[in-house]
Amino acid sequence: MPVNLSAPDPSTLFAIAGVRIGVTEAGVRKAGRKDLSVVLMDTGASVAGVFTTNRFCAAPVQICREHLALGIGIRAMLINTGNANAGTGADGLARARSTCATLAQKLGVEAAQILPFSTGVIMEPLPVERIEAGLDAAIADAQPGNWMRAAEGIMTTDTLPKAFGASAVVGGKTVHITGISKGAGMIRPNMATMLGFIATDACISQTVMPQLALELAEGSFNRVTVDGDTSTNDSLVVIASNQAGHACIESLETPDGQALKGAMLDVARKLAQAIVRDGEGATKFITIQVSGGQDAAECRKVAYAIAHSPLVKTAFFASDPNLGRILAAVGYAGIDDLDQTGIELYLDDVHVATRGGRNPAYREEDGQRVMKQSEITVHVNLGRGNATDTVWTCDLSHEYVTINADYRS
Amino acid sequence: MPVNLSAPDPSTLFAIAGVRIGVTEAGVRKAGRKDLSVVLMDTGASVAGVFTTNRFCAAPVQICREHLALGIGIRAMLINTGNANAGTGADGLARARSTCATLAQKLGVEAAQILPFSTGVIMEPLPVERIEAGLDAAIADAQPGNWMRAAEGIMTTDTLPKAFGASAVVGGKTVHITGISKGAGMIRPNMATMLGFIATDACISQTVMPQLALELAEGSFNRVTVDGDTSTNDSLVVIASNQAGHACIESLETPDGQALKGAMLDVARKLAQAIVRDGEGATKFITIQVSGGQDAAECRKVAYAIAHSPLVKTAFFASDPNLGRILAAVGYAGIDDLDQTGIELYLDDVHVATRGGRNPAYREEDGQRVMKQSEITVHVNLGRGNATDTVWTCDLSHEYVTINADYRS
Repeated sequence: MPVNLSAPDPSTLFAIAGVRIGVTEAGVRKAGRKDLSVVLMDTGASVAGVFTTNRFCAAPVQICREHLALGIGIRAMLINTGNANAGTGADGLARARSTCATLAQKLGVEAAQILPFSTGVIMEPLPVERIEAGLDAAIADAQPGNWMRAAEGIMTTDTLPKAFGASAVVGGKTVHITGISKGAGMIRPNMATMLGFIATDACISQTVMPQLALELAEGSFNRVTVDGDTSTNDSLVVIASNQAGHACIESLETPDGQALKGAMLDVARKLAQAIVRDGEGATKFITIQVSGGQDAAECRKVAYAIAHSPLVKTAFFASDPNLGRILAAVGYAGIDDLDQTGIELYLDDVHVATRGGRNPAYREEDGQRVMKQSEITVHVNLGRGNATDTVWTCDLSHEYVTINADYRS
Repeated sequence: MPVNLSAPDPSTLFAIAGVRIGVTEAGVRKAGRKDLSVVLMDTGASVAGVFTTNRFCAAPVQICREHLALGIGIRAMLINTGNANAGTGADGLARARSTCATLAQKLGVEAAQILPFSTGVIMEPLPVERIEAGLDAAIADAQPGNWMRAAEGIMTTDTLPKAFGASAVVGGKTVHITGISKGAGMIRPNMATMLGFIATDACISQTVMPQLALELAEGSFNRVTVDGDTSTNDSLVVIASNQAGHACIESLETPDGQALKGAMLDVARKLAQAIVRDGEGATKFITIQVSGGQDAAECRKVAYAIAHSPLVKTAFFASDPNLGRILAAVGYAGIDDLDQTGIELYLDDVHVATRGGRNPAYREEDGQRVMKQSEITVHVNLGRGNATDTVWTCDLSHEYVTINADYRS
């Protein structure tokens, strides 16, 4: 049961001019699943991506980086579920290249204009024949309004499709943004078994795109964690089809750039938070705010130490205000000169700990009240500076163990 | 159910001349539990300790460090369960000092000759009155042969007491070693909610003791992890009562020093591994060996990334050879220039992955056979150097969630 997350309302998802999506059942791993999607772009789109920091990055991630670096214009994305094509060595690269070449041939473009994405089981050979056999059906299915089907087509252990839309006024024109994401486990920053695709019809110079993609990732997907496992396949791709008819955005610092980035960040954050809300076995959505740090990096360290602690996560699952576990995680987060007597801890509006010890005014029933909520904010003030950062996570439940002990069966 | 661990055989635990142990029920948190122990030492013992790296270290840990640094000779340890006296600020320090002063007065020694230890719930005030009221009974109970009772007296979520003995020949004399430990959750290196006490009647110069304690910790307690949570209270104390009547060991590099350290390390490693075998909800004991690193630190990083991955741990619980999860953990361990094509992965004798991809000769049924065992060795060769390191851990089961969601109730 996802936490305060519903299936998207298709009427809130904008068709994006210049971007068509097709989905089919290719039987990649099991029959009867929408497991193959293509996203086809008109010429002239600006495209950028942010990818996993995992050194065991999958073959498709390596090829995405290579094709984006070549810079001859991306014309299509090819996305399969059921198989991650990771831990597959040179053979995995060859298989991913083959699927790109086949799709390119069918579209009359170059293989380097295709971005491939795979998610699913690691260390199994990609079933190239089944994917290539499904391409014609996926291409035939392609339409601008197919976002909902695509959100379904990229799901793995997700219980709900994830898609959000937004609009903004840029250069006097209303532009549209639609994004989809998938992911529920092996989720942590930089990034998750997480795929995110955000498209807009706004006009953005290609030179600005890498920075835009990075800033969107940093404010959203790079701040969520379910289980601390950084996937081999994480990818966020941002597409501007450049068809809205306004003057092209050349900098994110202009009013138009800020307006567009703000609207896109809103979509990215909802998509990222949706992954946590649908986290494997999640029963609670936890916001962890750390303030008073000397820099944002140390705030992030503390936030992730809390977010990854199995003891903290099981206490949230149990609605047990065993809040010393949070202090313990603060203590081992890796700030070598942290002074525990400067620490303040709040749970929503409840002031739990002060100067590193229990707040004399804290009452267990107040902590209990907050712990029973489905949405909880933990706020730690480190008392040593003015920096802040925020991370979103979920609890650790029996269902998490069940899902991950049974995933392949 | 602990993994291949039985209750200690009391006949294997040596009384250590010059060290007496007393245990009582003080009702620290609940009635009817052996929850207060004293370890009384004759004058002239050499003592050293290694303590948690958690910056939120508990009051007793702060006082242990202070009393050891004063160096006026340790005469007693005072150990309570049921309350960790951590996250308790200045009041917690005052309470711990009070218990030391009271015990010191009863023994006719200085408060700075007492080492206090607490384990249990965090952020609750230490019930000083109940502890002080129990001291007379604990002192009256003190005998050299009481190791088994002490091993029981320091248990919290442990399902079995943990104690091991060994002997060695040093300077022509047979010397004896007995150690006890506790811990099952909030266990990771540097160190665990782990208490370990190892005593010998051998004669060791006080100047050698800190190095001995550190080397014992590095080869044992600092290489185990259950859930990655570094406790606020971890303590390992090594005691030499200096009563065996041989020439005092002045260096660990002499043959006598080596012999004694080897025997003590054997006890320390068994005690540390017993904590993993009794890890909360553990059904499997996993040894993670990483070789081929440029240095031991990077081998350790990789070993801990594997050992802490919830996805790897649930795969072990399920006996599912979903071994790509191990490769993914290797990839995000933090070696920035790791070349995935140099990686070899073995599960016991089964060669799973080669050059970063699936070994063509690997058969799933071979992986399945090993995964069903209760003891499994994962071996990763990084292919970039000659360094190695080893970490011991357990799987992540439903029972872990149950224990930690219910711990305080």
